[in-house]
Order: sequence, then C-alpha cells, then structure tokens
Amino acid sequence: MAPRHERALEIARKVAAEAVLAASLPTVAWLTGFAPDIQTGPNPFAMPPLALLTNDGPPLLIISEDDAQAGAALGNDVVSYKGFTSGPLRPIENALQALKQAVGRRRVATEPGSLPAAFAAELGWVDASADLALARAVKDPDEILKLRAAVALCDVGQWEARRGALAGRTELDVWAAVKAAIEREAGGRTPVLVDLLSGSRTDEVGAPPSLRILRKGELLLTDLAPRHNGYWGDSCTTISIGEPNTSVKSRYNAVRETLERATASIKPGVAAGQLDELVRKNLNYLHHTGHGLGTAYHEEPRIVPGSPSVLLPNMVIAIEPGMYGDGAGIRLERVVLVTSNGCEVLSKYDLDL
Amino acid sequence: MAPRHERALEIARKVAAEAVLAASLPTVAWLTGFAPDIQTGPNPFAMPPLALLTNDGPPLLIISEDDAQAGAALGNDVVSYKGFTSGPLRPIENALQALKQAVGRRRVATEPGSLPAAFAAELGWVDASADLALARAVKDPDEILKLRAAVALCDVGQWEARRGALAGRTELDVWAAVKAAIEREAGGRTPVLVDLLSGSRTDEVGAPPSLRILRKGELLLTDLAPRHNGYWGDSCTTISIGEPNTSVKSRYNAVRETLERATASIKPGVAAGQLDELVRKNLNYLHHTGHGLGTAYHEEPRIVPGSPSVLLPNMVIAIEPGMYGDGAGIRLERVVLVTSNGCEVLSKYDLDL
Repeated sequence: MAPRHERALEIARKVAAEAVLAASLPTVAWLTGFAPDIQTGPNPFAMPPLALLTNDGPPLLIISEDDAQAGAALGNDVVSYKGFTSGPLRPIENALQALKQAVGRRRVATEPGSLPAAFAAELGWVDASADLALARAVKDPDEILKLRAAVALCDVGQWEARRGALAGRTELDVWAAVKAAIEREAGGRTPVLVDLLSGSRTDEVGAPPSLRILRKGELLLTDLAPRHNGYWGDSCTTISIGEPNTSVKSRYNAVRETLERATASIKPGVAAGQLDELVRKNLNYLHHTGHGLGTAYHEEPRIVPGSPSVLLPNMVIAIEPGMYGDGAGIRLERVVLVTSNGCEVLSKYDLDL
Repeated sequence: MAPRHERALEIARKVAAEAVLAASLPTVAWLTGFAPDIQTGPNPFAMPPLALLTNDGPPLLIISEDDAQAGAALGNDVVSYKGFTSGPLRPIENALQALKQAVGRRRVATEPGSLPAAFAAELGWVDASADLALARAVKDPDEILKLRAAVALCDVGQWEARRGALAGRTELDVWAAVKAAIEREAGGRTPVLVDLLSGSRTDEVGAPPSLRILRKGELLLTDLAPRHNGYWGDSCTTISIGEPNTSVKSRYNAVRETLERATASIKPGVAAGQLDELVRKNLNYLHHTGHGLGTAYHEEPRIVPGSPSVLLPNMVIAIEPGMYGDGAGIRLERVVLVTSNGCEVLSKYDLDL
C-alpha cells in the first residue's frame, strides 16, 4: 500500500485534478497532522484549516498566522494569513486570498461538504470526498503510533471510571474524574466524546453524563473517545456498582463472548458486512457493530449490515457489541489493529463487569 | 429596535433576497436557539444545522433526525433528514435534498463563509454575512436572560479557581476542578473556552492549562468563557497565590482602576473605538479591550482601536484590560449590559487580587 500522500494524489488524478485540496478536519489532519482546537466550535478569528497537496513534497497548510508555527512544526509548508487582530476581522477574505494564490489555476479534488461556498466560488474543483474518506481507512506506521497513544488514554479514562463507579456519586462526578485523568495523562486539554449512563439510563445506548446519582446494584456504561495528536481512540465498559444479579451476569457474558468471538474472527479478507452479521446475530442492538478509527472517530471500514468493505492489514477498528433492555444496557468495546493474519488488541483496560 | 427575526428579514430584503438562510453556528443559534454539541468537532453523521427564515413565523431548522426533537422543542419548525444509520452514511446528500425542498426557488441571503460548497452550488444566494453578524449585537430580552445565566456559570467557575489556586497543584488540577464546578452547576457537559496560566506563563496572555505547578507568590490568570443554552459568558481574574509583592499590587491596582473607569464610562452613544482609547491609554496590552457576547464568544461591538460601532441599549459586552511583563501578567474582565443611561454589571465574582 502506497503511503497516504501518494494515495491522495492518485485520487486527484482519477478525477482529472492536479491537486488535492483537503477541506474537512479529518482529511486535513490525515495529510498534515494538524488538528486545531475544536472544543469550543469554529474559531471566530480564522477559517477552518485547508491543506493543498500538489506533489510528493510536504502538503501546504493554509492557516491563520496564529496557527502558523504549530503547522510548520509538524513538517508542513505553511501559507498563513492574518487571523486575530485588534483591527477589523476579515478571516474569510484573508484566507481566500491566500488560498487563491496557493492554488493558482489548478483544478483541485476537494470535499464540497466542508469547503466553504466563499472559497468554492473562486476555484475550479471536483468532488473527491468519498474516495478521500475511503483512503484514510488503511493506516501508515506513524498513524498507528498515534492511535496506540489515543487508545492508551482510553485505558486511563476507563480505569478512572471503574475506580469512580461508587454509589452516591453523580454521573457528572465520575465524568469529571475521568476527564481530569485523561487530561493529566495527555498533559493538556483533550477533546473527549463521551456516553456516560447509569441505571435505567443505560438502555438509552448513548448520552452525556447527567446529575443522576449512582446506586448500588446498578450498571454504569462509559464510552470514551479522546482525540490525541489528531487521532481518536475509542472504548466502552459496563461496570456493576456492587454485586450484579444473575440476569445481568448472564447478559454480560453473552456480550463478552460475542466480543471475544468477533476479535478472534478479525483478519484481512473478511468483509465488514460479514463480521457485522457474525456479531449481530447473537444480540439485539440497533447501532453499528464497529467502525474505523483515525483522524475521525467514526470512519471506514464501518462494520455495519451489508458493508462490502474488506478488512486489510493496518486498519484500526473498534468493535462494540451491545445488548439493551430491562434497564440494564450493556456495551463492551475494544480497539484492534488488523495484522497480516489476524489482529492485535490495542485496548488494555479491564472489560470485566 | 425590532426583534431579531424582523431585523434578519430586513437584511434579506436589502440584498433583494426572499429569505435568510443562516449557515454559521452563531447565526443559527441566534434565530432558533439551537446550538449543537461542538466539543468534539463536526458531527460525522450530520451536516451543521441550517435555519431558513421566510416570514415572521418560526424559522425552519434543517437538521438530522437525531436532532429533530431538540430543535422542535425550542419552538422551531423542523425539516429533518436521515443522520446516523447503520446503513450507508449520506449526510451531505440527505441534507441537500431537504434544503432544496425547503428553499424552493427562493433567493436566499446567507453566510458563504460557513455554507458548504455542496449546498451553495444548488441554490440562488447572496452574501449577507457581515450584516447578519452586526444584527446580532443588540440583544432581545430572551437573549439577555440566557446571557445572565451564562455569566452566572462564570461566577461559579471563577469562585472555584480562587478556591483552587493553591501552591503545589498543577494548572490542569485547577482546571479540572473549575470545569467540574461549571458542569455540576449547568447540570451537564458545557463547552468552555479557557486560558489558565500561572507564574511567568501569565505573560503569554492566553493559553490552555498545562502541567505547570503553582508556587507561592505567583499569579494565576484564569479566563473562562462557557456556553450555556447557546449563549456564551466570559470572565477573567488574576489571583495571587499567597501575598503579592508591592510591584504586583501596584500593577494590579492600575488594571483594576482602569476597569472601574471603563465600566463607569459605558453608556449608549459611546463609540467602541472611543471606549477602547480611554481604557488602552493607561495600559500596554496588544489584544482587544473588549467585545460583544451572544451566540458567539467574540462578536460586535468589538471594543478595538478605531471601531466606529456605537454602544446601544441591550448590548452585552465584556471589558478586559490587561498588563503583561516581568513574569506577572494581569487581566481583569467583567461583563456588562448596556442600559438606557449606563450599564449593569452582570459578573458577580470577586475581582480582587
């Protein structure tokens, strides 16, 4: 498999374009390693980053002056424009000017679901978003290192959830401790997608933590997906607060056995749809069985009914079978790296009930 | 001042458009109250929300099925499209179909810096982004209630920062306690923009919390901007860990006196540039003197050099003079509501050193 820059340029050639203009955050991060702050939404002082790839050299990041140093430190060429200023703010106009100068008369293969209309109106472009998203599925060695680190943050967070699953605390109390543990380990602010549900709420499958108080004999379902250096980890445990009853134990065992069977069946050549069928037939969940992880927290290969995607070495996928109902929803998840003849389990946290 | 729906429609008429198509998160939230999760970046299962305003009735939110209930509960009309599915994901195509049906043959006044190219290519549109951003500056009564609540969350966070500013803790420790306090008060996950800097780092003006350990005799600068119900609060304190030295005290007094003088001078009719000049002449900071708050954390009226914007009743603005250097950066901020003859200070937290 050619490295990702070559695969991206090949896509551009297929659609008769001379360059790739990455416009979505995941594709920009994939090509450049640059992942801007996201936790407070779009930056009012800058446009979202763009990355132009024209040859086998480094990509050209088109970002505001405020981000230029960070973008260059990652090994990219950078063309920057005025972002924050205590004069008038003109991020759209400034970014457009930098973009037009960088692109010149090239026709670009881009992502029109993310590229702003203000930019597209001034360029020759063709939609290559589906192929770019697919190309991200097989990881390069540097990406696998980053994914291992993101999954290690999940280990820390899940360990803290297990330690904090005590009767009398609120879901938000547990979440605060989990988030703090992840940020301490990461050394700084870290975006985390979270479902954190206790008791009868576990049947809702996914939702953020609330003021609900944990009680003895209940379950706590914790799904954590942190982003670290631009790459997302993922994880889910379901923990019993005190001794679980027989029915819960038996349901847990069904999910756990299904997860173990799924893990054992992962190897190159298996179709994602076939893996989905194998896992889903034992259980009754409505969500996906799993998904790829990378610069997006849900990407190809999606492990869903009928998916024709085929597992390949160096894909990194999360598998997350679940069973919901009777106020005792259970989901267990682990992340694996597809190897030449099977898979390596990257998640190291305890999956026990 | 006409309520915001009328002001928005007036802007559309000015550019010969028949409707407003809000595409930026702040303008969508301003028209509809709908503010999606932002903490983990763009949703891979849906497009960012759009809002179509065609008359004095409720706006039409164009959002995925996953958000439809939340959007309708806010009093909006909703047209929804398939978002998450365990089948193939097609958010762009699905949203475009819903959008085209809603807009019909109308020419829309929109925000091309935020509207995706995939949508703009299929619509008749004209750029009204600058006027829409300006129109958000004067707040309706329901917006002022939401801003009071967001500023009250700042009070809670700043109180916790003051309590937690103890030698031996890391900046991340203080931040974890502050974030937990805000989320406990809000009852759920809350986006927060944060600068949290101690010791010599305070001279950097703004940066997220790190693993740096707080020491006795240092300063802690904490700037917190949480979003609650779609509206952003803002706040900044600088706290001495232990007794401050004479030089720090005197610098603090200069900033504090400047903030008090600025507050006393705020009233309708004052030009933002004039207010900036009054505040800035005593101090030596490079950032803005202040800015409007609403569905964006930095909006008009921007209190910057030369700004011609004029303060009007029901604007809500943050004022934040600072002084940096000698490893002891100081910034103090408060949020005020412009009244008919002065201003009401909304921030209730302690500003003492």
